[in-house]
Amino acid sequence: MSCDFLALANSGVQSLQPYQAGKPTSELERELGIRNIVKLASNENPLGISNRVKQLLCDELDELSRYPDSNGFYLKTALAQKLTAKAEQITLGNGSNDVLELIARAFVSEQHEVIFSEHAFVVYPLVTKAIGATAVQVPAKDYGHDLDAMAAAITERTRLIFIANPNNPTGTFLTSSELKHFLDKVPEHVLVVLDEAYYEYVDKAERAPSIAWLNHYPNLIVSRTFSKAYGLAGLRVGYAVSNADIADVLNRVRQPFNCNSLALAAAELVLDDADYLTASVEINRVGMIQLTERFDELGLDYIPSKANFVTVDVGRNGAEVYQALLQEGVIVRPIGGYGLPNHLRVSVGLENENQRFLEALCKVLALK
Amino acid sequence: MSCDFLALANSGVQSLQPYQAGKPTSELERELGIRNIVKLASNENPLGISNRVKQLLCDELDELSRYPDSNGFYLKTALAQKLTAKAEQITLGNGSNDVLELIARAFVSEQHEVIFSEHAFVVYPLVTKAIGATAVQVPAKDYGHDLDAMAAAITERTRLIFIANPNNPTGTFLTSSELKHFLDKVPEHVLVVLDEAYYEYVDKAERAPSIAWLNHYPNLIVSRTFSKAYGLAGLRVGYAVSNADIADVLNRVRQPFNCNSLALAAAELVLDDADYLTASVEINRVGMIQLTERFDELGLDYIPSKANFVTVDVGRNGAEVYQALLQEGVIVRPIGGYGLPNHLRVSVGLENENQRFLEALCKVLALK
Repeated sequence: MSCDFLALANSGVQSLQPYQAGKPTSELERELGIRNIVKLASNENPLGISNRVKQLLCDELDELSRYPDSNGFYLKTALAQKLTAKAEQITLGNGSNDVLELIARAFVSEQHEVIFSEHAFVVYPLVTKAIGATAVQVPAKDYGHDLDAMAAAITERTRLIFIANPNNPTGTFLTSSELKHFLDKVPEHVLVVLDEAYYEYVDKAERAPSIAWLNHYPNLIVSRTFSKAYGLAGLRVGYAVSNADIADVLNRVRQPFNCNSLALAAAELVLDDADYLTASVEINRVGMIQLTERFDELGLDYIPSKANFVTVDVGRNGAEVYQALLQEGVIVRPIGGYGLPNHLRVSVGLENENQRFLEALCKVLALK
Repeated sequence: MSCDFLALANSGVQSLQPYQAGKPTSELERELGIRNIVKLASNENPLGISNRVKQLLCDELDELSRYPDSNGFYLKTALAQKLTAKAEQITLGNGSNDVLELIARAFVSEQHEVIFSEHAFVVYPLVTKAIGATAVQVPAKDYGHDLDAMAAAITERTRLIFIANPNNPTGTFLTSSELKHFLDKVPEHVLVVLDEAYYEYVDKAERAPSIAWLNHYPNLIVSRTFSKAYGLAGLRVGYAVSNADIADVLNRVRQPFNCNSLALAAAELVLDDADYLTASVEINRVGMIQLTERFDELGLDYIPSKANFVTVDVGRNGAEVYQALLQEGVIVRPIGGYGLPNHLRVSVGLENENQRFLEALCKVLALK
């Protein structure tokens, strides 16, 4: 074959590196022949799915040879009611990753700039580069978004700004007043995506009234997911809420069957399952204390987190510590690719999972 | 709000019309208060999913709070073995729609032309327009692809050609020798997507050896789906097979978790379920005879089809007949948007479903 197919790819695509997912336990089992693995690498919900969801999914299996409802009528109706929004404001995605990509693909082209923060979610630069647009990464402040610097980075070419709150992989948090102050400075033709994937883990009193803000900021798009506190990562479903005109554009670009039938059904159910959500948040609260108190005892610095993970400074090359932890059957996430080579991101697990991680970490770091 | 957000969207996106999916039965039930609806609108497998798949999915539910394997290791391994290909040649998609879109987004940009046939699958113009590339629609010959005209349409700006075989919504078929003759004429830097969504319905003796062709045509990409003969439309999974360099590019653009966990598991299982596939194909063979023999009796022209649907000329406005059939509780597909205003596309159902449709059609057309 004489043709160089990578050279045929669009220029932005040529520079893409594939996303590094958390290593699945099955993969580690294959590689190392280890069993009883603890995975704290992908900010998943350690509770597993509820028996109610299991029962529902078993009941829905008969219809799987049919295409999903391409409009997600029932889930959108339920979301609209829950969020005090209209169904026409909602765009459903195959996870919120899908929604983030749709926004970029619909509104951004090669001549535009996209602003996001240093140490922010890797999907922002990925979707920007895939389009061939210019990625503008603004240096972080205390590991989090520097909103003043991000506002100052807006130019005539800026079309889109991504803000993660809480941020992944640092867990940093922006207050409502900080966000509002920022939104007031953004011109209306510049879209702002407020990525609230970890929204449900934030104390209710501290959460931004982001959906209500949509009435004041027509250029705001709020994205959320069912993959974290709602525990449906394997099914893939997330959503954006925006003004209806933006939602109309996103729905034109969206693949008609981007959300599978079981994801639609399960999301509708868990949205109404207050007990599950409460349990998810409580397990996370307790596990976060377990992890950070031990980090304090061990003298390890960590970034205070409002999410379901905590990022800890291991004081040496994180990738090496990650590899050593794998040998102990514990999977966490090295984040050198996020500009944090000495940190590891650890998802909050069940008590025994957190304990397994802490013991393995002590062994690997030769602490205590 | 003063900003025109549609005007902010990329130019190709502004011209997009949302995909018109087959009406879900739940929607018709809501609208008309009708029960016992027959849906022959989306080329779905009327068999439903097998008990083996149901059992497997119930067994997999515990893991749904975990992200899917982003590399689809087990499904790719199974596909590679089944197809006599290498896992590195495979790109998994959230349905083959996802794969078709990935190919366009990875390799096509605004300055390029994309060639496809009149009356071919609507996703080809949709993905082309979304990028802002130029759609080159070549007039059909006998409702099918005119490969000579498509080859003659290639210019210096052509980057991608879509060929559906069998074609949706006409069911027309290209022989191996016709395809090979065409592929020999396409320059190596022009990618050819051979969309074989309905491959399994074609008699084995007539199927093109498309996977083996990949060794001779490095610019060929074969796409297939689990949504039709394999009966998993609701779960969303399809794939492309290509040379490994192209697959590498596609996997860079692919959302890392585009395939959900249950889709990966179910597809791996059904790939090995020869009994289910045989039953699917046999039901389709018998149902196709049932439909077309009755069309012959009624004096209705139809386009001979190798797929799991048949497109019939109702001799008047198809959209009106479609609406009248809805009132009878039968959903089929009007295809005026495909340039066939007097035709309806009817999926082959179970014997009683086909019968219900045929009776409703006679009533609506006042035949016999």
